[in-house]
Amino acid sequence: MHDYEVLAREVMARCETLARFSEDAGGIRRTFLSPPMRDCHREIANWVAPLGIKPKVDAAGNLRISYPRIVGGDRRPIFLIGSHLDTVPNAGAYDGVLGVVISVALLRAIDGRRFPFAIEVVGFSEEEGVRFGIPFIGSRAMAGTLDDEVLERRDADGISVREAIADFGLNPAVISGAALREDEDVAGYLEFHIEQGPILESRNRSLGVVEAVAGQSRLKFTFIGRANHAGTTPMNLRHDAVAAAAEWISAVERRAKSIPELVATVGAIQARPGVGNVIAREVELSLDVRHRDDETRKAAVEYLVDQAKRIAKSRGLEVRMVELVNQQAVAMDSFLSGQIAEAMQKAGCEPYRMVSGAGHDAMIMATKIPSAMIFLRTPGGISHDPAESVRVEDVAKAIECGVQLLEQLAASSEFLSFMPRT
Amino acid sequence: MHDYEVLAREVMARCETLARFSEDAGGIRRTFLSPPMRDCHREIANWVAPLGIKPKVDAAGNLRISYPRIVGGDRRPIFLIGSHLDTVPNAGAYDGVLGVVISVALLRAIDGRRFPFAIEVVGFSEEEGVRFGIPFIGSRAMAGTLDDEVLERRDADGISVREAIADFGLNPAVISGAALREDEDVAGYLEFHIEQGPILESRNRSLGVVEAVAGQSRLKFTFIGRANHAGTTPMNLRHDAVAAAAEWISAVERRAKSIPELVATVGAIQARPGVGNVIAREVELSLDVRHRDDETRKAAVEYLVDQAKRIAKSRGLEVRMVELVNQQAVAMDSFLSGQIAEAMQKAGCEPYRMVSGAGHDAMIMATKIPSAMIFLRTPGGISHDPAESVRVEDVAKAIECGVQLLEQLAASSEFLSFMPRT
Repeated sequence: MHDYEVLAREVMARCETLARFSEDAGGIRRTFLSPPMRDCHREIANWVAPLGIKPKVDAAGNLRISYPRIVGGDRRPIFLIGSHLDTVPNAGAYDGVLGVVISVALLRAIDGRRFPFAIEVVGFSEEEGVRFGIPFIGSRAMAGTLDDEVLERRDADGISVREAIADFGLNPAVISGAALREDEDVAGYLEFHIEQGPILESRNRSLGVVEAVAGQSRLKFTFIGRANHAGTTPMNLRHDAVAAAAEWISAVERRAKSIPELVATVGAIQARPGVGNVIAREVELSLDVRHRDDETRKAAVEYLVDQAKRIAKSRGLEVRMVELVNQQAVAMDSFLSGQIAEAMQKAGCEPYRMVSGAGHDAMIMATKIPSAMIFLRTPGGISHDPAESVRVEDVAKAIECGVQLLEQLAASSEFLSFMPRT
Repeated sequence: MHDYEVLAREVMARCETLARFSEDAGGIRRTFLSPPMRDCHREIANWVAPLGIKPKVDAAGNLRISYPRIVGGDRRPIFLIGSHLDTVPNAGAYDGVLGVVISVALLRAIDGRRFPFAIEVVGFSEEEGVRFGIPFIGSRAMAGTLDDEVLERRDADGISVREAIADFGLNPAVISGAALREDEDVAGYLEFHIEQGPILESRNRSLGVVEAVAGQSRLKFTFIGRANHAGTTPMNLRHDAVAAAAEWISAVERRAKSIPELVATVGAIQARPGVGNVIAREVELSLDVRHRDDETRKAAVEYLVDQAKRIAKSRGLEVRMVELVNQQAVAMDSFLSGQIAEAMQKAGCEPYRMVSGAGHDAMIMATKIPSAMIFLRTPGGISHDPAESVRVEDVAKAIECGVQLLEQLAASSEFLSFMPRT
């Protein structure tokens, strides 16, 4: 048995190493197929070389590390484990990367053992949506749900996804080859990821089992009143868009607090003309609403739309809204999640069942194959920030839980009955 | 007796003529000593030429039109009448300009009559503060309260006030000569101006007598919370700067509504990072508070500062504030205001006594000489906008009221007792 604490320290050091491969001198930024992604792939290849494994990079830029040693027949299925290798600008060292590095550590931890399934570690090329304004390019390509339209998208320098792939030395013409093949048995996908939120910390837990990725609504609201002189317009003759927006923001907060697990956020607000001595004519606001239950989310959005209309009407303003995102909740696989909870318990961790408020590659993979996620406690809930961190003891627990899970699956007739599917 | 309606139509046509002298092709913009200001001066000179008057431009760029025909000795005082000739960008045709053009119309309306005082129409060079970020350059120069420091201020092109004056063909070295001389008897200043607010319209009145220019506080508030992921941070673990700001904006509005004549405005709001899926770390807001009574204004500001602290504390945020402006209220001369009210009544207008929420040149002149203001109803309260307008019947009433006032003052022993002062 491995000393998971030692492996965990190595995982953290490796995350720090990958953090040095950045497009920016002053911070971490590694977007889709940018030059530092190549360094990242090379470094990881060095780590798995002693295991006799030579990773491949598929046409979507996903790093794919196959651990094919299996017992049994030659149509044994594949179990995927991983996360993404790209980052936001000014990122921390763990979001995405940690999941890939833990997966690589798992290969080391099980080295020598044979399972009745192959394992493939995947480092997705793109999850954050930074370079092309569209997220999940890597996992969509692998799930076979990448629209051709995406290939024509251009980054800020006018380079298309197609060109970025070619510039990296890959062949965009064969991107469909990155998709899981129909004749392949893929028994599931497991993603390790930092929680990026404060829940596990507030509950004093190391690890969480993600039961679902919350559905998400995003809307733009615009309150339109009348610009007037701040000094010459009495309070009772105003049609102040800032005051209307403020009343509505408070309604958003109150409603979200009243419904369990609902989160609703106004993160962007812009007033026009937006100067101190002019009553604002117009205020544009964002609304982001998430919940595991789609009906609950839709009802909350409807209520907040009604509130906006009521507030606008009572103040003699207009309000307009545009729906930008209406994304359904995605359930994780209940069998795999149950196995994870059991594995956590065996690793000495009380599993915490939770919902992910953020989108993840597992949400994309779940449209094709049974998928599950393990969250690691995120100190202060801080992510997408250089201060992002993770505790070494939580990483050790995650590795131990992963090993335990693989052993359970190897012994599970339910899991093994997946194969061969055809 | 003149047909004031005809004069009023001419006034409005003249305002439209001056509106064509603009720095911008698409709209009205005429800042301090910009080239179109010269066209403006030339045009007005053409209007008064038939009266045998040749205007001068003083070293601060103020257009000064002297009507010296007086009865009595040679130390008769001067009564100043006017407003400003500069505009904001994308201005209407009446703010400032209307007051100067009405004053010129008054010279025409009284043409031939002699008064026991000289009349000087003044078209101030600068009131809006657009070009150099500091308002009232013209009236400050005339009141003798222009700091030397102002001459060194530079516009967006790096041109100083001093250079702008020289570029216009004037001599900045003699700018102190623009000031009213100590040995001159200046009996008062009367300003005609559009209200720039909705009060007269809402009261169904043509003209207002301004009793005071409200004092003004301007502050910048910054709420500092913690940025977090909008999807992964439960409502009870947030330190949301937008939600705190919203609560405070509502408190500002409630307080202002509860105190007669108080106006308080949050016109600028900026959230950081200001994106829809991130709980805002920081929100910066403006606060503008005005009232005719300085103590009432200061108490309101103190209350709102306390509320900001209370709201920040209850949400685990910090709040910082910076005072940008703390300008005292300025009373208009009660004798002149009383005479104006009487003149309005004689002109068939019920006078409406009111406070100006906006600053005006009369506020600067009042520091040196008895000053008064007549407001004209502003349809929709719209100003600083191309849609700014004024009603021809209100302009006719303003001219009639002006003529009536001059006649009253000529007959007033109290007014005439001003002279000679020395």
